[in-house]
Amino acid sequence: MTRHYNFCAGPAALPAAVLERARSELLDFHGRGLSVMEMSHRSDDFIAIAERTEADLRQLLSIPSNYKVLFLQGGASMQFAMLPMNLLGKGGSANFIQTGIWGKKALGEAKRLGYSCHLAGSSEANGHVAVPEQHTLALSRDAAYLHYTSNETIGGLEFNYTPQAQCADGSVVPLVCDMSSNILSGPINVADFGVIYAGAQKNIGPAGLTLVIVRDDLLGNALPGTPSLFDYQLLAEAGSMVNTPPTYAWYLAGLVFQWLKDDMGGLDAMDVLNQRKADKLYAAIDASGFYSNPIAPPNRSRMNVPFVLADAALDKVFLNEADEAGLLNLQGHRSVGGMRASLYNAVTEEAVDALIAFMADFEQRRG
Amino acid sequence: MTRHYNFCAGPAALPAAVLERARSELLDFHGRGLSVMEMSHRSDDFIAIAERTEADLRQLLSIPSNYKVLFLQGGASMQFAMLPMNLLGKGGSANFIQTGIWGKKALGEAKRLGYSCHLAGSSEANGHVAVPEQHTLALSRDAAYLHYTSNETIGGLEFNYTPQAQCADGSVVPLVCDMSSNILSGPINVADFGVIYAGAQKNIGPAGLTLVIVRDDLLGNALPGTPSLFDYQLLAEAGSMVNTPPTYAWYLAGLVFQWLKDDMGGLDAMDVLNQRKADKLYAAIDASGFYSNPIAPPNRSRMNVPFVLADAALDKVFLNEADEAGLLNLQGHRSVGGMRASLYNAVTEEAVDALIAFMADFEQRRG
Repeated sequence: MTRHYNFCAGPAALPAAVLERARSELLDFHGRGLSVMEMSHRSDDFIAIAERTEADLRQLLSIPSNYKVLFLQGGASMQFAMLPMNLLGKGGSANFIQTGIWGKKALGEAKRLGYSCHLAGSSEANGHVAVPEQHTLALSRDAAYLHYTSNETIGGLEFNYTPQAQCADGSVVPLVCDMSSNILSGPINVADFGVIYAGAQKNIGPAGLTLVIVRDDLLGNALPGTPSLFDYQLLAEAGSMVNTPPTYAWYLAGLVFQWLKDDMGGLDAMDVLNQRKADKLYAAIDASGFYSNPIAPPNRSRMNVPFVLADAALDKVFLNEADEAGLLNLQGHRSVGGMRASLYNAVTEEAVDALIAFMADFEQRRG
Repeated sequence: MTRHYNFCAGPAALPAAVLERARSELLDFHGRGLSVMEMSHRSDDFIAIAERTEADLRQLLSIPSNYKVLFLQGGASMQFAMLPMNLLGKGGSANFIQTGIWGKKALGEAKRLGYSCHLAGSSEANGHVAVPEQHTLALSRDAAYLHYTSNETIGGLEFNYTPQAQCADGSVVPLVCDMSSNILSGPINVADFGVIYAGAQKNIGPAGLTLVIVRDDLLGNALPGTPSLFDYQLLAEAGSMVNTPPTYAWYLAGLVFQWLKDDMGGLDAMDVLNQRKADKLYAAIDASGFYSNPIAPPNRSRMNVPFVLADAALDKVFLNEADEAGLLNLQGHRSVGGMRASLYNAVTEEAVDALIAFMADFEQRRG
């Protein structure tokens, strides 16, 4: 068995220690004679797993007690629909900051469902290389909330500040954030947000699980005709078990949270490590005449580092040679091309060093 | 490591051979240096897994080419909402046969969403111990489809015939079936159905995956305002990858399908085996003066066998002793109490024999 360096944007690398533990427990969890996959979600054993997972996440992110934590299905894209159905029950319009493809999709889905949508800020004019500054944001008069994407996975653009969702009259509306690709990369102040959500398949666990952290006062306003499994209030009341949840993915998320706490020293330590990993790679790109990244330095993503070669004709050679060197999944998103190295929590500093060394060698030979 | 006999109703037992194979590949799939969980869903490796899984299922169930196979999230309960949103786009009412709790929930969700619903048949009057006969079914004049639950997991009531969805004027509307707890237990004639759906966590794989088999002519009619991830047409066009699917659950379902084909001899063989397992257990119950099952023999479920003890005060003792004997998860659903032994595909005949022996011994000692 060999483990290679995996820079996939998602579903992404998981910590080897987590996979090893999952493997050791796969056929027999704690001597119970069955797999976690084979347990009722209402069994004592699974309830203990679920509760510990939530408690560990609450500790990692210092989640205040007036927030509910939901473990759902459907991915962040399902939230694009669930958010307006839950947050516009009292009327008003959904406001968006758009800094790339995912923010655009979130707005598009709310529009598709017929909701009133307003673009409160955008980086489209600069080609999504710098996030809009706070003073340029303009919420609609009837804003019910402000949605943004803290890290655009495809573009590699990350907010370096938390937007204030302030309307012209000074009132503040809930801030809603898609944190799919940078949640748990460092500490955040949950109290700044009304809703935080994230697909699991980057920094949480396997695909098929979606995390939603929602402030209590935003529950109970779902529009009539909202499917039961879309209603935050019903989901919160049922402890995310209105129906059978994705139990194995939930368990694996729990192992990741334990790894973050016990092996990695929590999110302050991850913050330092992730900064160091990203700084190294951007420094190598900037020092080179061959590789380049277009993003304004303060908004460069720590999680997703897109870059292009000076000669795009070499892209395939680069990817093939990287693959042979055990550096996997460096191709950029199919919509933009080029390269992308995702440096999520489970991607080690050793992996980043190996990538940098490979890039230098490739440049020397082919650049 | 010990593997006990697991009679859980769901998430349910998986074949040991499948779990062993998953374990052997967990950290390194086929020498690729990463787990299936860590692969992009758009990678060649995962696409090959996804395509083989669908091809194997099509072979197992002899699915005609004019049906799409979708691998979704949300469970069968999500389908309770998706079905009317997709099938009532041309108007008409949703018709239901109700033979227990799940059928009732399916109707309740369609009602909650504001659709016109009609009860075309019910076993409520007989306490859900026998399914309504074909000649008693009465579809509404404007029926758009007829929904039923082929096996009620909680009540242990299974249809022994495929209903005809015939209206009073002789026209036939699509038949829609929730097969969550008996799909793949034997052959079916897919062409009899408009839509077949099933949560994975009984006979398919782990929780968090939902199978939908839908006839081509039923695509493309979703109501305006339907979320993208609810629209069968969009999902079918995208090969179930409108967004990131639950890749690991999909892979495990594939391993289960391979096991059914290669190790178990396909669904004809499963049919024989499942009949034999169920016959044995019902015979033991009927021969006893201590255990009883209330369901009319022709409608007794082969997958879920509920039974009660003559003395309910012994329930806890029975469950504790069974647990100590390595016979797990025999408690009935929390809404009905008593006992329930689920005999899904992965529950071996050896497990059923062990249960029958334990029950005889318990009756002798305590009955």
